[in-house]
Amino acid sequence: MSKTEKQAPDRTAATARPDNGGGTAATGVSRRRLLGTAGAAGATGLVLGAGGGAAGYAATRPEEPAALTTIGATEAMFHGKHQPGITTPLQARGHLVAFDLVAGAGRKEAAALLRRWSAVAKELMAGRAAAGGADGPGHDTGIALDAGPSSLTVTFGFGRTFFARTGLADRLPAALDPLPVFSADALDARRSGGDLWAQIGADDALVAFHALRALQKEAAGTARVRWQMNGFNRTPGATARPMTTRNLMGQIDGTGNPKPTDEDFDRRVFVLASPGKPQEWMEGGSYAVVRRIRMLLDDWEKLPVEHQERVIGRRKADGAPLSGGTETTEMDLDKAGPDGRPVIPGNAHARISSPEKNGGAAMLRRPFSYHDGIAEDGAPDAGLLFICWQADPFRGFVPVQRKLDRGDALSPFLRHEASAVFAVPGGAAAGEYVGQRLLES
Amino acid sequence: MSKTEKQAPDRTAATARPDNGGGTAATGVSRRRLLGTAGAAGATGLVLGAGGGAAGYAATRPEEPAALTTIGATEAMFHGKHQPGITTPLQARGHLVAFDLVAGAGRKEAAALLRRWSAVAKELMAGRAAAGGADGPGHDTGIALDAGPSSLTVTFGFGRTFFARTGLADRLPAALDPLPVFSADALDARRSGGDLWAQIGADDALVAFHALRALQKEAAGTARVRWQMNGFNRTPGATARPMTTRNLMGQIDGTGNPKPTDEDFDRRVFVLASPGKPQEWMEGGSYAVVRRIRMLLDDWEKLPVEHQERVIGRRKADGAPLSGGTETTEMDLDKAGPDGRPVIPGNAHARISSPEKNGGAAMLRRPFSYHDGIAEDGAPDAGLLFICWQADPFRGFVPVQRKLDRGDALSPFLRHEASAVFAVPGGAAAGEYVGQRLLES
Repeated sequence: MSKTEKQAPDRTAATARPDNGGGTAATGVSRRRLLGTAGAAGATGLVLGAGGGAAGYAATRPEEPAALTTIGATEAMFHGKHQPGITTPLQARGHLVAFDLVAGAGRKEAAALLRRWSAVAKELMAGRAAAGGADGPGHDTGIALDAGPSSLTVTFGFGRTFFARTGLADRLPAALDPLPVFSADALDARRSGGDLWAQIGADDALVAFHALRALQKEAAGTARVRWQMNGFNRTPGATARPMTTRNLMGQIDGTGNPKPTDEDFDRRVFVLASPGKPQEWMEGGSYAVVRRIRMLLDDWEKLPVEHQERVIGRRKADGAPLSGGTETTEMDLDKAGPDGRPVIPGNAHARISSPEKNGGAAMLRRPFSYHDGIAEDGAPDAGLLFICWQADPFRGFVPVQRKLDRGDALSPFLRHEASAVFAVPGGAAAGEYVGQRLLES
Repeated sequence: MSKTEKQAPDRTAATARPDNGGGTAATGVSRRRLLGTAGAAGATGLVLGAGGGAAGYAATRPEEPAALTTIGATEAMFHGKHQPGITTPLQARGHLVAFDLVAGAGRKEAAALLRRWSAVAKELMAGRAAAGGADGPGHDTGIALDAGPSSLTVTFGFGRTFFARTGLADRLPAALDPLPVFSADALDARRSGGDLWAQIGADDALVAFHALRALQKEAAGTARVRWQMNGFNRTPGATARPMTTRNLMGQIDGTGNPKPTDEDFDRRVFVLASPGKPQEWMEGGSYAVVRRIRMLLDDWEKLPVEHQERVIGRRKADGAPLSGGTETTEMDLDKAGPDGRPVIPGNAHARISSPEKNGGAAMLRRPFSYHDGIAEDGAPDAGLLFICWQADPFRGFVPVQRKLDRGDALSPFLRHEASAVFAVPGGAAAGEYVGQRLLES
């Protein structure tokens, strides 16, 4: 079948509907609405509108074709036990942004900001315009107009420095203690840390950018951007392998991740706080360790593939362990080759980072790749925005990274350039904003 | 309908097939092949594999699920009268990279490089691995493994400085004369110009990055990167408006573009060279003007939407001219409002840049947005990688930009930070490489 035009996938002849809800006749800027009956959110918190993947779509003009696709129409839920963006499938585009409170902004101003941010996140994740009116300085930028939610998620967190600045030092979790120094660290303080953090993910770059600008606008006067990073993953539908992605070294990433169906998944990833304890506000939350990990690609790409595979301990093509099987086969760390040496070398990345070699330490890795062009040294400024989620970084990221730091064959090809840890509270209940249990209790 | 997992769009139960072609047993790195019967390329040069949008897919392991979608499977043609990436629909991800020949590299080395680049582009655009063997320093990086072509296009051009350095000064087209200086220019010479240029576009970010690295590898020893920029557009399927995109100001972009169905489209966009003339090698080619245009978004977003619309001359929501109608309605430049003043203001961007106000000058704009985080001035380093295509920049871009430079209401919100013009020769015939008619005649 030949085509003379590129077609959007799964184009469905959904009927355009006039917008009866958020339209503003004065400017012609109408809000987009998903009119379908959103079903119950599953483990990933994603829903599609009614109609077999096509939701009713309020186009700005009734006569326009309104073709919804699963990419545009997929909606993640803002409210829930956990914040979105943790177990949500990897999105094609991501922004990480850290803010510092401005001088004079304390607990009250931070609470108001989180309330505004939560309201904006909820609207945008539903594919609607940001609040603020269509005219005047508060209007929506219009960058996401025409698009659906596109799996947008917005996730908020608090850094260690937030607590003293807001008079909440007694609530500071021990889990936010400074990370140990690792030998491969070359950290840039200006791109590390931060009082507040937002993670934005979406399958459309303009939808993601729109959300980033909306958060920045709400922060004006209360917090200023400390650092901001952009990332990406595969576009849904570009690959036959939807659940794991490749990184810029060409390796499949995320194979060893705990699965939401694992018996101990919740216990490893999310905080189960005791009522009445100082960290009760973190119930249902998680800790995000964020590392900007530069990949020394010019060096890596010179290695023969067989050498790369020994560094990782897995086959490049399909992610299967060198001990055999497929991507999901468990590694046989004891298997020896004809020469008597382990098939998965002693310093292979997959061996050293495997939970069974780390007392069961496990974290949910949910990264974005980054590529910011050519660095000053002439090499690609590219690598991984490593983000891992766990109930306690000192039982997840830290012990694994300590071991990797001592003898990982991959380390010579990586440079950790920035680092931060954030306390990401549980999801907001209906009528609540993210962090309310910290800021108003 | 609720889903507990995000589904790739248009998932088709295509049968996985073992790879009989490019597999390399030693490393397990198999090449991907689109086995479908590729139909004739239409105006846009895009084809889908056989089977109603699903092409046979050579997964690395026969037992793996192979789900092809239109995003992954869509293939642009390398060979043709014109190079790909000019009339190809906008892709979700783009890289622009300019190279300078290294000292000692001349015509012969440049010809060899274009031959290598063309071979790589052809393989990658078909969804196959780059040549160079699967082992040793020449192997494919594997970053695009598992994905299809994802509409990848690679387009090559020559800058003004290329001709003297390769002893081809007698072939230098007048169309590559330096552009005039415009008052809004704040050009960074290090990010302008270049001997050679490649434009990469794809609907998957990893496929695009893979191509960028492959071109860089082939250039080693012959040319070094002068500058490199990353851009993006909507993800196919994220929007109901597939043919025009929005820019980071929220405006619909590309409405006034000439259409391939226009009678004079070819004459405006492509070079029709006379046989025997010095520029005969440009037959079927086009000239690309590339401008990195920073948008001063903090200022722009403060304007009320009605003010923004008067600056542009079109409605923000749907791109319709302020004189009425829909996006595709022609502007009525004479229409006056109740106050007797033109509905489309005299300095509106759409009025000043309209072909009918520029002696019919028209260019095919095919941009990417860019966003490189926060600039040193604290504002977003974001805007448009403006790329326009025309048979002669001095009858396309230059007269329009001259008029805009004098009185465009949009100019105060823009800053041109980099500039380049490239001669993009016609497409390579089968067995030929891009630029061969220049380099070997």
